[in-house]
Amino acid sequence: MPLPQIASIANPDLAAKLYAAINNKTKPLGSLGELESLAARLGLIQQTVQPQLHAPALIVFAGDHGIVAENVSAYPQSVTWQMVENFLAQGAAINVFARQNGMALQIVDAGVNHDFGVRDGLIDCKIGPGTHNFAQQPAMSAEQCGTALEHGIALARATAGNVLGFGEMGIGNTTSAAAIMHQLTGIPVASCVGAGTGLDAAGVMHKQAVIERAVAHHANAASPLDVLATFGGYEIAMMVGAMLAAAERRMVLLIDGFIVTSALLVAARLQPAILDYCVFSHCSNEQGHRQMLAALDAKPLLQLGLRLGEGTGCALALPLLHAAVNFLSQMATFESAQVSEKN
Amino acid sequence: MPLPQIASIANPDLAAKLYAAINNKTKPLGSLGELESLAARLGLIQQTVQPQLHAPALIVFAGDHGIVAENVSAYPQSVTWQMVENFLAQGAAINVFARQNGMALQIVDAGVNHDFGVRDGLIDCKIGPGTHNFAQQPAMSAEQCGTALEHGIALARATAGNVLGFGEMGIGNTTSAAAIMHQLTGIPVASCVGAGTGLDAAGVMHKQAVIERAVAHHANAASPLDVLATFGGYEIAMMVGAMLAAAERRMVLLIDGFIVTSALLVAARLQPAILDYCVFSHCSNEQGHRQMLAALDAKPLLQLGLRLGEGTGCALALPLLHAAVNFLSQMATFESAQVSEKN
Repeated sequence: MPLPQIASIANPDLAAKLYAAINNKTKPLGSLGELESLAARLGLIQQTVQPQLHAPALIVFAGDHGIVAENVSAYPQSVTWQMVENFLAQGAAINVFARQNGMALQIVDAGVNHDFGVRDGLIDCKIGPGTHNFAQQPAMSAEQCGTALEHGIALARATAGNVLGFGEMGIGNTTSAAAIMHQLTGIPVASCVGAGTGLDAAGVMHKQAVIERAVAHHANAASPLDVLATFGGYEIAMMVGAMLAAAERRMVLLIDGFIVTSALLVAARLQPAILDYCVFSHCSNEQGHRQMLAALDAKPLLQLGLRLGEGTGCALALPLLHAAVNFLSQMATFESAQVSEKN
Repeated sequence: MPLPQIASIANPDLAAKLYAAINNKTKPLGSLGELESLAARLGLIQQTVQPQLHAPALIVFAGDHGIVAENVSAYPQSVTWQMVENFLAQGAAINVFARQNGMALQIVDAGVNHDFGVRDGLIDCKIGPGTHNFAQQPAMSAEQCGTALEHGIALARATAGNVLGFGEMGIGNTTSAAAIMHQLTGIPVASCVGAGTGLDAAGVMHKQAVIERAVAHHANAASPLDVLATFGGYEIAMMVGAMLAAAERRMVLLIDGFIVTSALLVAARLQPAILDYCVFSHCSNEQGHRQMLAALDAKPLLQLGLRLGEGTGCALALPLLHAAVNFLSQMATFESAQVSEKN
């Protein structure tokens, strides 16, 4: 399957029209700050001066990671499938926030080490019962990685609406994300690794050593897809595919925290124009996310010290996207409200 | 009228129960960051482990300022009343954001230099047609200041619901707020003054000089109420009263930007325990707000470069308060969801 092709959103004429509309609203010039650039970006993505949000959705991709054999996580691997059950039972944070803010939620088994059987509300895209331990061998084969990308592409193409948020669940996946970050950006592993779900300082040191040995072992992995297959997870690879397809469809991509951003890092190396479609929902408290965002020249909307994953940052940021669209469509202009302009 | 009395929310037993509930939710410890401390604070304010938000409301206080005779604003004074008309016609930013996020909106004429007549949706608490020019004399008399406080107290006591946001409109009021900030904190005027609705660098320098002359002229104004009467506005004084009464009622106070925070600064000097009840919605792009927040040891939820006023930051932050309450009431626990705990 050929990878999706993504067009730039650059359109100077439309951008000028959008900023003229924004600047004519009854408020001091520029006084809505980040909401103004957000409104303009949404207009450019949708190629209109009147952007609208339609049926925002969020997909949570779950997968397990062979690297957990190296003791890199504070929680046992079984938490991955238990949290999938929690998603299906509406008990997790992402259920609460998605419901609150009107975001349709899909849960995808990308490769969890558990047999769920056929279950209402669970989309079965299982590539296998978790990846291999990348301390010893590539996490997945090129073929498995390609299949994960294809599933992601198909999922995004089947999604209604024009806003797609990305979330994930997978014990061990901050280790994958940190290795991907290091390998694609050259930032030292020590700056890419963090506490994940809650390692202590010694645990973080150990995790760092595991990643340093692994990247030395796989030093030949250099192309984005090689890096993804070698260090990634099924859920990360599936997100890469879904992101590419969503941007090809000119959807707004809502980016969550450290792991989701690592998937975007891969996607952006394949198709740099994808960044035009991204809204970065928050800066995570996971060490490394700030530098990963900086590597993408990304400015996140929220800075709340979150480090939960599941797409929770996306769901929490969605009202700000609505606010951007709403002020642009609903506010009066200086002329319509007969308000005097600047001296 | 005696000023409202405010009790501390400190309650170690309840705080322990709240954090036990937060920590038992199916998420890594502390992973909801600022939302966790927010949830705990809402519980302490409401004296329950199950806080709920009921009928959140926002009052926009409008007033005019004699200090505009000194050319301290980028917009003419008539914009104050024109924007009140815009509020009544649902065309301003605060109308859009309050509607979006389910916040009841009240508009109060605290002292606008315009005869609105009797108007649906406009609460008439007019103290006078704008304050005096505080470059020459106190902005208001002690009696006028007291009347404004009383109106504010009555308004907050008449408000249904348990969340009250504060907004304002008044050409010239960043000049009042900067003078109050300087006088109560001792921070140099140069660090308190900003561009307001959009002064250029020369305009900011001029505004600084006006404030420096005025504070030298009124060097004897030292007590919180003297400072308020000397440099404040009717809308600022009315907010002080409303804040005190809202905290006395144990409501959650949602604090907006530079001017609203200057009112809180006065209220906190009168009743320090009021700070327990405050949620700081955002850090404004108005120079001085960051330092004013620091003087109150306040950590704002949003940092979006807003500098619009009207209570817009409050309305934009409200979904995060809902999120805090909702995760606490709706998320599963490790036990209820049968999810394994940390290794």
